[in-house]
Amino acid sequence: MKKLVLLFFSVLCVVNISATTLMSPNQKLKLIFDIKDSVPVYSLLFKDKAVVEQSIMGFDLYDGPDLSTGFVLSEVKFSEYNDFWTPVLGQYDTIYNRCNACLVSLKQPSTGREMKIEFRLFDEGLGFRYIFPRQPELAYFRIFKELTQFAMSGDHTAFWIPGSFDTNEYFYYTTKLSKINAEEGDGRGISTHKVFDKRGVQTPLMMKTSKGLYINIFEAALVDYPAMALIYNRRKQTFEAALAPSPIDSISAFMQTPCNTPWRTVMVTEKAEDILASNMILNLNEPCKIYDTDWIKPMKYVGIWWEMHVPGRGSWNYADEPNIKLADTDWKSLKPNGRHSANTENAKRYIDFAAKHGFDGVLVEGWNVGWEDWSGNWKEDVFDFVTPYPDFDVYEIYQYAAQRGVKMIMHHETSGAASNYERHIDEAFDFMKRYGYPAVKTGYVGRIIPRGEMHDGQWMVNHYNRVIAKAADKQIMVDAHEPVRPTGLCRTYPNLLACEAARGNEFNAWSAGNPPEHETILPFTRLLGGGMDYTPGIFEIKMEHYQPGNPCQVHTTIAKQLALYVTMYSPLQMAADLPENYEKYLDAFQFIKDVECDWQDTKILEAEPGDYITIARQGKKSGNWFVGAITDENARKAKIDFDFLDPKTKYVAVVYSDAPDADWKANPKAYEINTYIVTDKSSAKIKLAPGGGCAISIRPATDEDLEKKYKKL
Amino acid sequence: MKKLVLLFFSVLCVVNISATTLMSPNQKLKLIFDIKDSVPVYSLLFKDKAVVEQSIMGFDLYDGPDLSTGFVLSEVKFSEYNDFWTPVLGQYDTIYNRCNACLVSLKQPSTGREMKIEFRLFDEGLGFRYIFPRQPELAYFRIFKELTQFAMSGDHTAFWIPGSFDTNEYFYYTTKLSKINAEEGDGRGISTHKVFDKRGVQTPLMMKTSKGLYINIFEAALVDYPAMALIYNRRKQTFEAALAPSPIDSISAFMQTPCNTPWRTVMVTEKAEDILASNMILNLNEPCKIYDTDWIKPMKYVGIWWEMHVPGRGSWNYADEPNIKLADTDWKSLKPNGRHSANTENAKRYIDFAAKHGFDGVLVEGWNVGWEDWSGNWKEDVFDFVTPYPDFDVYEIYQYAAQRGVKMIMHHETSGAASNYERHIDEAFDFMKRYGYPAVKTGYVGRIIPRGEMHDGQWMVNHYNRVIAKAADKQIMVDAHEPVRPTGLCRTYPNLLACEAARGNEFNAWSAGNPPEHETILPFTRLLGGGMDYTPGIFEIKMEHYQPGNPCQVHTTIAKQLALYVTMYSPLQMAADLPENYEKYLDAFQFIKDVECDWQDTKILEAEPGDYITIARQGKKSGNWFVGAITDENARKAKIDFDFLDPKTKYVAVVYSDAPDADWKANPKAYEINTYIVTDKSSAKIKLAPGGGCAISIRPATDEDLEKKYKKL
Repeated sequence: MKKLVLLFFSVLCVVNISATTLMSPNQKLKLIFDIKDSVPVYSLLFKDKAVVEQSIMGFDLYDGPDLSTGFVLSEVKFSEYNDFWTPVLGQYDTIYNRCNACLVSLKQPSTGREMKIEFRLFDEGLGFRYIFPRQPELAYFRIFKELTQFAMSGDHTAFWIPGSFDTNEYFYYTTKLSKINAEEGDGRGISTHKVFDKRGVQTPLMMKTSKGLYINIFEAALVDYPAMALIYNRRKQTFEAALAPSPIDSISAFMQTPCNTPWRTVMVTEKAEDILASNMILNLNEPCKIYDTDWIKPMKYVGIWWEMHVPGRGSWNYADEPNIKLADTDWKSLKPNGRHSANTENAKRYIDFAAKHGFDGVLVEGWNVGWEDWSGNWKEDVFDFVTPYPDFDVYEIYQYAAQRGVKMIMHHETSGAASNYERHIDEAFDFMKRYGYPAVKTGYVGRIIPRGEMHDGQWMVNHYNRVIAKAADKQIMVDAHEPVRPTGLCRTYPNLLACEAARGNEFNAWSAGNPPEHETILPFTRLLGGGMDYTPGIFEIKMEHYQPGNPCQVHTTIAKQLALYVTMYSPLQMAADLPENYEKYLDAFQFIKDVECDWQDTKILEAEPGDYITIARQGKKSGNWFVGAITDENARKAKIDFDFLDPKTKYVAVVYSDAPDADWKANPKAYEINTYIVTDKSSAKIKLAPGGGCAISIRPATDEDLEKKYKKL
Repeated sequence: MKKLVLLFFSVLCVVNISATTLMSPNQKLKLIFDIKDSVPVYSLLFKDKAVVEQSIMGFDLYDGPDLSTGFVLSEVKFSEYNDFWTPVLGQYDTIYNRCNACLVSLKQPSTGREMKIEFRLFDEGLGFRYIFPRQPELAYFRIFKELTQFAMSGDHTAFWIPGSFDTNEYFYYTTKLSKINAEEGDGRGISTHKVFDKRGVQTPLMMKTSKGLYINIFEAALVDYPAMALIYNRRKQTFEAALAPSPIDSISAFMQTPCNTPWRTVMVTEKAEDILASNMILNLNEPCKIYDTDWIKPMKYVGIWWEMHVPGRGSWNYADEPNIKLADTDWKSLKPNGRHSANTENAKRYIDFAAKHGFDGVLVEGWNVGWEDWSGNWKEDVFDFVTPYPDFDVYEIYQYAAQRGVKMIMHHETSGAASNYERHIDEAFDFMKRYGYPAVKTGYVGRIIPRGEMHDGQWMVNHYNRVIAKAADKQIMVDAHEPVRPTGLCRTYPNLLACEAARGNEFNAWSAGNPPEHETILPFTRLLGGGMDYTPGIFEIKMEHYQPGNPCQVHTTIAKQLALYVTMYSPLQMAADLPENYEKYLDAFQFIKDVECDWQDTKILEAEPGDYITIARQGKKSGNWFVGAITDENARKAKIDFDFLDPKTKYVAVVYSDAPDADWKANPKAYEINTYIVTDKSSAKIKLAPGGGCAISIRPATDEDLEKKYKKL
């Protein structure tokens, strides 16, 4: 990885006043740090108006004196970052890191202990973290409660999901802060649904003020610490940090100096687009730790997966048997249920399809023994990750795929039994390497084992990170499902291609589903931490296709499904529908075949959380541009200025749009495909149906194209 | 392993009466099983008098209907066992298994569920276990509370240690049942001391009735279930099972059918000796699961260990540094503390000593990095088990030991971080094989990680068993310290040479120590489950030898230390004292050199818990006999009839006895060594000093011996 430090200088000055101020490079944001009655406090101002009112910082400890009060300021160091770096995979070829920083050192004279707080102020927001230096008076300590607060300046509109430490698979609620009620959260279909506090919400938390300012609270670089959620204190109009507890439930985090917390972040922008365009979260993560990254590649894939979600089709399990034991079961003697999707023949069918249409990979779920009673039993010895079902010939499939230039994607569902996965992971990764699987999709459905641990707790954070690091050692790419939500660690470990960690498309197949606005919020929240394996591309939208009378459906039009490949960033993108469904709509499918998932450049054309998003991206491979526009349940016109195009070039734009009568509910499969000539001067207003979208692929026009006399857009 | 079924037949008879009775082969013990008000109950009678009064059986479940009531008897099957088997290592060449058995099947009509209870009635006691067959109505279930009771028939005298789920390292209290008060337990020196109930005690629990009957409550074959302790209900004069909880503390055990509980055992004998001579616990365990057992050998060993326990000598840690991180520390840059015992030179000294005196192995503790802050910090990444300190050259020591025919014993202290050990165990075992270590001493000092799990809980039981099974796969012998107490699993996995799981000799070096009676109780309790690595053989008994004024001492005479090699069964025996101390008393040391630790035959000559034990054993290797006699704080005369000797042979007996003025406190090092001629007609009364003992080695007399005109005993 190239990294060039353009400018970096550090100014050391010991100040004698306690209030410390820091301005963002564009001078719009101002941080004020102070010590008030011996308690560290901070506030954040945008154009001199408080966005975060004075808020306390610190920790209550489980044992020993707290790190909450009795502090004096001992030193302040200012510095400035202005550099750039090149992500292995990403939305931009080059990422600029420009911020002003200050490091305050606090002493607690009564204990002789020291704590530092590091602030970095970017144009679009603030990051700060606590640092605990190595020191005689503080080696091991246990955090009972992180006291960090975020005092809001008004009763903003928030896009929130209920606070749970074991799942993020909720759809979003849009309310005033004062109306947050996590207990209203719809947990149907979520095996680990449990709200930790009536006023608890998760981060990233997106908000909008009545003045039209966009605010986002999140964190970056979550390592060896529990994830941070928030509890809203209505009386104080303040968010308080809420950390996923350990099984010893009055302890949140076990710390050993030298150490630090993750970065707590507050983004503040006047335009919603600037939230989506921000790289602040990535910039707050550590540089890449993988020396040779040549093996890390973006992937588009198909897989044996959606057919297990739609009604009445495939199953992960080979037999219908509610009680099996991995060590004792003779798999060949089980009676097959006749619906087991992960069989050799079906895998070959997907491999053929992938090869024919130029997909990189094929995922197969349900290939390994143990699926008969994997879920809901809190079972530890649930999978061994190396034993295929009798009808799945790993070696044959390995050869078949290799001969066709298709990569297989491994699936390691753990059922939440992380301890069991750690026991098997070396052998499982070796098995992958032996059979040519360059990537693994992990899964953590269900309650965690070690029992008492939670998905978002420190132990599990360490587990996920351990898996990623071990995968990096073995040159394996990771797509983690049901992990803690990512916090930009893909910078440090770019083999972390994508995560789920939110309510994915699958919920549409068998639950109330994801309302049309869902995908207009995710980029403002979950995606700030890294790519999401949302699994778009569903063409057979209504489940009644599979089962008459089934009311479930994807809350989308076909055109919107295409647009998601652009609006939902991920270097790992699935074409999730069944091959036979794509064969019926090959013209629309062409967009999925063409679209890239690793980008040279990205332009956020227009965006409003909960309403719409329009993004243009330039593919790293072809240099072609792709545009995606989506809307919520309301029809609208996406406004696209093509000024991002090279002024010297004429382009052909293939526009995949909703048909005039399209509607996510009434008529979701109605789309149009039109081809135009566009230049950097072009602009268009494209109608998006309710729950609809539009996708455009743009390539330089050939002479042949120009002869065809396509209309100008 | 040879196993010959001499006689086995099974009688199937469906009975229509609900009360079922079963007699022991010798007709002295009678079990009565009944269903009373739909609750299963049992009682146990000795010569028609109740030893266990009618006691309930069953389970309260965490979810779903309980398995406690609503039962009807559906079937009773009687059978009889009369066979024998050959342990790989043990106290006897052949073990006879003779008992009458019955299997009662219970139906719970309201739920359609079935539960079976299997009883086996031996001459010396009862074993019973619950069996949950595979059935449609019961696949997964969670035990909230095991309801098994043991209703006592009087206020017996009990030899108890306080009930804790995290340690057994207590000395014994001898009180009436009504006076049990676990909170009086002395937890000093025990990092995980915590009593779970004021009336809680641990098993094996030894008792004596006012009529002189000996009763012992324990369990056998603890697999995939928490250990069973007891809570005494004073009002009901009844013990109730108490299971170590999971971190989800209203759940004790996670069960999946088909499954069973361990055997609950009640031994009842008229003579204390019969408790010690019993093989009932082993007989209730499964046969050996290791096909090739040739590599499993008894071991006598010395080691770098006691010098870290005595005051002012060695240390496990290389540097005095309260805060290190395994991943970050540069070990070579640490400042050595100058006391690190596990250095190459010292290891060679022990190897030389072992080679010179014919010991099989050398243990080295503190060889691997991480000891600086290993204890008390509940730290997960505490050891990696493969990185030696800079002053410990594994390869050089491996060669040095191999050239001298000495085996190295590996040390894997986990600090209780079992999750970390499981992560490293494959690599650690491979490391052992690479450097020629055939055995490992594991350690679990401190609170368990996964946090919330406990030493005696189901998860940790599975962990210990997983380590033993994995070691068996790699042909590694195991000596587990601070594990759950063993329950006869060495029959199934004879590579489990020994465990600690009780208060070992080490406590004498730095605490109030073990009172002189301690070793007269352990064989009636802890040792029923398998050999103990008690680490006897301390000759420099008083710690003032190392540090003037230090009041600690081993509560023993030298002669008693020798006797322990016979009275405390273990196929792994340490000569725990320092080489330089043995060099001063080479005549006494000769017994430790001669004594064996794997036996052809064992004779319990006399025994009374808390008072004295005299045992004779015949070595498997030489056929020679060894006698050990120990007493508590009172002087006594050990009465030894030599009728166990071959009538046709004259023997030389070397008697290592307390000198007339010996006394554990005033004069512990005074011993005498006398040689006699003995035959099967000989008998002797040998004076044991307060806290003293006597050891005798007996070999066939040579002509040369006979010429020496030794006295007859």
